[in-house]
Amino acid sequence: MSPSVLDIFRARTRLRPWLAPTPMRESAWLSSVSGGRTLLKLESLNLTNSFKIRGAFNALLRLVESHPDRAARPMVVTASAGNHGRAMAFAAERLGLRVVIFTPANAPLAKRAAIRRHGADLHDEAPDYDAAERRAHAFVQERGGVFISPYNHPDVIAGAGTLGLEIVEACPDVATVVVPLGGGGLASGVGLALRAAATRARVVGVEAAASTPFTAGLARGAITAIEPTPTLADGLAGNLEPGAITFPLVQQLVDAVVTVGEDELRAAMRALAAEEHLMVEGSAAVGVAALASGRVATAGPVVAIVTGANIDLATFVAAVAAPAAH
Amino acid sequence: MSPSVLDIFRARTRLRPWLAPTPMRESAWLSSVSGGRTLLKLESLNLTNSFKIRGAFNALLRLVESHPDRAARPMVVTASAGNHGRAMAFAAERLGLRVVIFTPANAPLAKRAAIRRHGADLHDEAPDYDAAERRAHAFVQERGGVFISPYNHPDVIAGAGTLGLEIVEACPDVATVVVPLGGGGLASGVGLALRAAATRARVVGVEAAASTPFTAGLARGAITAIEPTPTLADGLAGNLEPGAITFPLVQQLVDAVVTVGEDELRAAMRALAAEEHLMVEGSAAVGVAALASGRVATAGPVVAIVTGANIDLATFVAAVAAPAAH
Repeated sequence: MSPSVLDIFRARTRLRPWLAPTPMRESAWLSSVSGGRTLLKLESLNLTNSFKIRGAFNALLRLVESHPDRAARPMVVTASAGNHGRAMAFAAERLGLRVVIFTPANAPLAKRAAIRRHGADLHDEAPDYDAAERRAHAFVQERGGVFISPYNHPDVIAGAGTLGLEIVEACPDVATVVVPLGGGGLASGVGLALRAAATRARVVGVEAAASTPFTAGLARGAITAIEPTPTLADGLAGNLEPGAITFPLVQQLVDAVVTVGEDELRAAMRALAAEEHLMVEGSAAVGVAALASGRVATAGPVVAIVTGANIDLATFVAAVAAPAAH
Repeated sequence: MSPSVLDIFRARTRLRPWLAPTPMRESAWLSSVSGGRTLLKLESLNLTNSFKIRGAFNALLRLVESHPDRAARPMVVTASAGNHGRAMAFAAERLGLRVVIFTPANAPLAKRAAIRRHGADLHDEAPDYDAAERRAHAFVQERGGVFISPYNHPDVIAGAGTLGLEIVEACPDVATVVVPLGGGGLASGVGLALRAAATRARVVGVEAAASTPFTAGLARGAITAIEPTPTLADGLAGNLEPGAITFPLVQQLVDAVVTVGEDELRAAMRALAAEEHLMVEGSAAVGVAALASGRVATAGPVVAIVTGANIDLATFVAAVAAPAAH
């Protein structure tokens, strides 16, 4: 069931005691290369270093509200490329909930170590995100608990939508919002918020060329299985689960979907470090990569959402140290 | 002449339309190694990527207020290791003032390129900061204009003091504030603000071992010439000019001064990148280095000011890529 705009406003009220708005900052470099005034919305600086804390905290706070009896609160189970898992582990620790998290075995240590630090029960043996999701569903079948998807869940989407409200408030004349696209939860939430605000802003989703479920699905008009290949944008890789509500939401709310390759991704990470002194993860740089490579038609103020910073130092150094091979 | 506490409150009102408060964020890593709850005040995310924008903007806004006739506004001349220069160039561009900036020849390109981008007149031929300062004074003697020191100026100190007010408001029970110490403008301003707030917080200044004018001067009870050696903390290197008002202010307001070596500095930069996903410049990491190496007695909440992020990418990669040699 798709969240309503009211759900996004409720999420904001619910999150207010826990999360401060994140900074939004003009990038002189990106403005000059993208051809329009461009701002970076720095979710990389949010609690747990990614936007995922918005949806995770919103979902768990709702669960607490709907189970006033502490003893009756269910175990929470989730699958994640890592950031949603880190955010769920953080929020569950704060709220005293038990959480079980399935991630791929090759998720960055920066994500898995943080999940463990918050006392969550981490299963990190799956070969990729899709397998982690299957294992999480199987776990719920066998052991019970409530599955909270990192993207296909109304409370997670409503939480992500609060980011859209912050963008409109900080930049009411925004013309284009560029959103990294993995499972589509962020694009759906931000799209709903922008529509509610009656902006005329275009929403552009950016997939890593290594994993393009939306590019493939939108072309066919239905969720379409893809074969993800390895990518620096580890947070975006994976298929949509059958019946994912984010698919029709992205169909309705996202004006264009573009893809970026690994070299463009590395170049964007390098430029963000060199020009803006920001350390971000691969998934967070896809929007900047699309703008820097002229893949997005820009006019008026552009906001690029920089979604997270959870990257291992060695991966970061390797990505930014040498120019991309061509 | 030393600024008053009222000057700091006036600075805050003056700066409010231009600068948003910077984030302050708990560091789980630093809390665990320093032995007390530790927060990072991220001036690295301020406009122009350093705290220097506070003092520079305050000084230039005061100059505009005191010269209502636009044609009568003097040329502004300054010396800087780079961050004050970048901040002055930015503020001068916004306010339509002419500014001439002297930096060392080896100041990071990240700082010098930004100064040029804002249309300032940059002289970057001096062998070190002290020589840049002498050249700036000689320039004013010959050509006129108003010299605004990066540390030895009441409006610059009052602007820096606004950072102290933000710390107390975000963390009223702060017990220790750890401040990078170069010319002492930041420590003076923050110390004045903390005293005004009647906190019992201790102020600890941290010098790079390569440049210790305060360690040397406080021991003798008078400004003492030192010979700076090369350091990753380029923003802190240099002598105090004769009669610097920051010397008696630091004497009165700073409870302890400690030093950190280059290896500790590199280790702190590496840990900030690995654990907090922050890219900061060397000068900004001295407080974290002092805490991580147990150089600061900690109790109660500690706030470490992370002063800036203007570092060249290659310098950053070299600092964080390999473990420090021992």
